[in-house]
Amino acid sequence: MSADECIFCRVVAGTVESSRVYEDEDVLAFMDIQPVADGHLLVIPKRHAPYLADLDEQLGMSMFRAGQRLAAALRNSGLPCEGVNLFLADGEVAFQEVFHAHLHVFPRTPGDGFRIDADWREQPRAELNDASERIRSGMAASPS
Amino acid sequence: MSADECIFCRVVAGTVESSRVYEDEDVLAFMDIQPVADGHLLVIPKRHAPYLADLDEQLGMSMFRAGQRLAAALRNSGLPCEGVNLFLADGEVAFQEVFHAHLHVFPRTPGDGFRIDADWREQPRAELNDASERIRSGMAASPS
Ligand SMILES: [Zn+2]
Ligand SMILES: [Zn+2]
Repeated sequence: MSADECIFCRVVAGTVESSRVYEDEDVLAFMDIQPVADGHLLVIPKRHAPYLADLDEQLGMSMFRAGQRLAAALRNSGLPCEGVNLFLADGEVAFQEVFHAHLHVFPRTPGDGFRIDADWREQPRAELNDASERIRSGMAASPS
Repeated sequence: MSADECIFCRVVAGTVESSRVYEDEDVLAFMDIQPVADGHLLVIPKRHAPYLADLDEQLGMSMFRAGQRLAAALRNSGLPCEGVNLFLADGEVAFQEVFHAHLHVFPRTPGDGFRIDADWREQPRAELNDASERIRSGMAASPS
């Protein structure tokens, strides 16, 4: 998909309507139009970047800094907010739906209907150590 | 809770067993003992900080930078990984269980059993604009 066709690039360009909340040199934050709760925000890089790996580290850090500022702002906003989740989906299997990287920031309240389910299990130490070794090898092989 | 009693401070101190993967001046990453999938990591600040608001922005950015590096490493690790989620729970209502701030980084594969459910709804523009205005006010009132 070209940047022209990307809905989030169009938000940045202002050619599609959005409710903006925060902006700095690198990132923009605006209201998610399909929120899990009133106050659900998306932080995006202004420059088109489909995946986490397409964000240089400074840009990723700017996104998280905005997320922290917005989490604090949500708690001060008067909107119902007793907690905050930050969530980033990198890849379709990870529930990414728009392929312009974005960090979700949303307020939480008791009974808000947001649920996570997973096949949690206690993992034996030997398996944890094996996984940690593989990831360390993966890190050594990574470009950054 | 004092730092002595905090399980993640004990991981940092090395007085409880962990499978470490990454470390820099500010943060440490190790395997979650109750993973949603093989390769599930936690990134924590080395200094005790219960909530997101207790992390100065530099420290938050260091956590996210580690998360990005670990996401890349997971994709290069040989562990099943077709996508990655980053998740941070700030507050008990947001599913925080250990009150030393931590960023989850975990690999995703089709059929891995990780699910999110929520009361998603399209929100009218007027409500989105109202929320954005409140959050901007909250940001103006925030300390950072
Ligand atoms: Zn884009
Ligand atoms: Zn601690």
